[in-house]
Amino acid sequence: MDVELQLAVERLHARYAHALDSDELERWPEFFTAKGRYRVTTAENEARGLPLPVLYAEGQPMLRDRIASLRHANIYEPQRYRHMVSAVLLEQESASMVKSIANFLVIRIMENGEAVLFASGRYVDRIALPELRYEERIVICDSRRFDTLLAIPL
Amino acid sequence: MDVELQLAVERLHARYAHALDSDELERWPEFFTAKGRYRVTTAENEARGLPLPVLYAEGQPMLRDRIASLRHANIYEPQRYRHMVSAVLLEQESASMVKSIANFLVIRIMENGEAVLFASGRYVDRIALPELRYEERIVICDSRRFDTLLAIPL
Amino acid sequence: MDVELQLAVERLHARYAHALDSDELERWPEFFTAKGRYRVTTAENEARGLPLPVLYAEGQPMLRDRIASLRHANIYEPQRYRHMVSAVLLEQESASMVKSIANFLVIRIMENGEAVLFASGRYVDRIALPELRYEERIVICDSRRFDTLLAIPL
Repeated sequence: MDVELQLAVERLHARYAHALDSDELERWPEFFTAKGRYRVTTAENEARGLPLPVLYAEGQPMLRDRIASLRHANIYEPQRYRHMVSAVLLEQESASMVKSIANFLVIRIMENGEAVLFASGRYVDRIALPELRYEERIVICDSRRFDTLLAIPL
Repeated sequence: MDVELQLAVERLHARYAHALDSDELERWPEFFTAKGRYRVTTAENEARGLPLPVLYAEGQPMLRDRIASLRHANIYEPQRYRHMVSAVLLEQESASMVKSIANFLVIRIMENGEAVLFASGRYVDRIALPELRYEERIVICDSRRFDTLLAIPL
Repeated sequence: MDVELQLAVERLHARYAHALDSDELERWPEFFTAKGRYRVTTAENEARGLPLPVLYAEGQPMLRDRIASLRHANIYEPQRYRHMVSAVLLEQESASMVKSIANFLVIRIMENGEAVLFASGRYVDRIALPELRYEERIVICDSRRFDTLLAIPL
């Protein structure tokens, strides 16, 4: 087992979580490679082999556009999120690529202070080395009940 | 502190979680030694020193029977689970055995897409080395309100 | 990256969580340095730069007093808590001090067995080395809706 790599990937996931939870959304694209892909889908779709994602963005410009739209629409402001990441498992693909799976939980705190379980699921990532950025982050949500339009990046 | 051992045990807990969350229940017995014990109890019972577990299985054949019954009864199909594991603390018992305690949280996703907090508690494990299998996994649930019969392994 | 330090800090957070979840509140002050500070605030207050904490205690005697009051009031008895910690990020300040941020989630189990999401937020810590105790633990809660008086330490 590569101890350094395991902790480096966990640290990447942690930095990603803190950036979102601190509402530093403009930093979100920087966690991806230049051509990095971000895909949100549901476990149901995955199980049925349906290729249609709930959300798809590829490459830094498209990721930045997504954040710009969110900021412009101003729809996410009153909420706050809290990401928990657990059970990170690595599998090295090549010298320049490592695959990671992890479980996640996202809590959403509403304007009135109520906290609800917003999303849970699995991150399936391909991470470019040595720069430690996501070449691909697939977010597989357990539930099909979540409002994509309102959602900040998971 | 033994860095390698800490990460190896965390990896065992992670593989266990992903196997259950991916509905690969047939792999569940493989996480235990040949005579491995699986016990579910409640914090209340533990605090009172009541020996009666909510569920008990010992040895691979009994663990496999439990999965076969679940599959046959077909009662768990519509649900999905998501395990979060945290705060893993190790204590080495001998060269061939390490004790681990950890906190867990299980989310259950119902057929209608609703996600609920299904169970929380503590794993108290004895893990055989170097094969890294559970000689004993005691699942101490915080709440006494959970439907054992319907439950997949925690 | 300092692998040993990362795991040592995660172990500190884990021991802290287990002490609280096992109702060993008398051990809580020991996790702090002699002059250690414990502060609970809300994300809203932090964002607005409001210095007023929800709760503040400084130094081991004051921390012990807080536990004594809780024990005397006997108000926390029927509840049980479960702490989950995730996304631990370190930044070394000096040879004798490391800063840590981490996400947390606290589940509260009521007397009737119901489990609710009690609090979520971020730990912002300064940890004294090599003794690995909190010089400062700031608990930034996402929600402003929590009953401080009833709360055990987060």
